[in-house]
Amino acid sequence: MYLKVEHIGIAVKCLDSTLEMYEEGLGLTVAHLEEVPAQKTRVAMLPIGESKIELLEAMCPDSPIGRFLEKRGEGLHHICLEVENITSALDRMKTAGVKLIDEVPRRGAGGCLVAFIHPSATGGVLIELSQSRSEPEMTTEGS
Amino acid sequence: MYLKVEHIGIAVKCLDSTLEMYEEGLGLTVAHLEEVPAQKTRVAMLPIGESKIELLEAMCPDSPIGRFLEKRGEGLHHICLEVENITSALDRMKTAGVKLIDEVPRRGAGGCLVAFIHPSATGGVLIELSQSRSEPEMTTEGS
Repeated sequence: MYLKVEHIGIAVKCLDSTLEMYEEGLGLTVAHLEEVPAQKTRVAMLPIGESKIELLEAMCPDSPIGRFLEKRGEGLHHICLEVENITSALDRMKTAGVKLIDEVPRRGAGGCLVAFIHPSATGGVLIELSQSRSEPEMTTEGS
Repeated sequence: MYLKVEHIGIAVKCLDSTLEMYEEGLGLTVAHLEEVPAQKTRVAMLPIGESKIELLEAMCPDSPIGRFLEKRGEGLHHICLEVENITSALDRMKTAGVKLIDEVPRRGAGGCLVAFIHPSATGGVLIELSQSRSEPEMTTEGS
């Protein structure tokens, strides 16, 4: 059911200075830079093997990343696991009594379907599930 | 220089109950269980693609994971990136002025060579570098 670690999300105060550390210092390379207005977030993706590091900067304090930074400071924010079929993965978890943030998948970046598991079901870790292509029967929002 | 995300380390209060959540709830499978007396830690490895989730339980409060749990609670603890050559990776970082916890690699689990980068150089994230086989010129400690 699980294919890979899709990305590891890291909340940072300043994307530009952190990118400089990851590129000049650690020797990683940015493959993609994006603003996600719906989440009030600026995002940079740095590939490693089949996975990516996702650096997340809040575009304003009143945003999911802004509130995380206020409460916990910079650091690891979430991990995203790619699954083959997100609907059947969520169904399986519901049957097993896993507490979910999203009971049905929603549209994420790049046309993915995503859903979050509640940290109380994972030892305090925010886990995102993602399916790279939508199922044929699913309606695409806004397109 | 980077090959893959080797593992994602998660600090948990109780390994047995968290393992039940990851296996019964999330549908992952434990590949390896180990006690690491040097770190006073119990470890479970759950593979996903080319990576693993590493669940870490403190065997006593006075241990790296025990102190982390006391300070931050359960959650994401570190990420480990596999590199081709850890000595040249560390040399490159020293030249670039990256603050390191380990300036020279040390022996980790399974004969790996490992070294930690200081979180101040990575946006608050504890990053471990790991090389799966030691270089021929390196002396093996205790074997």
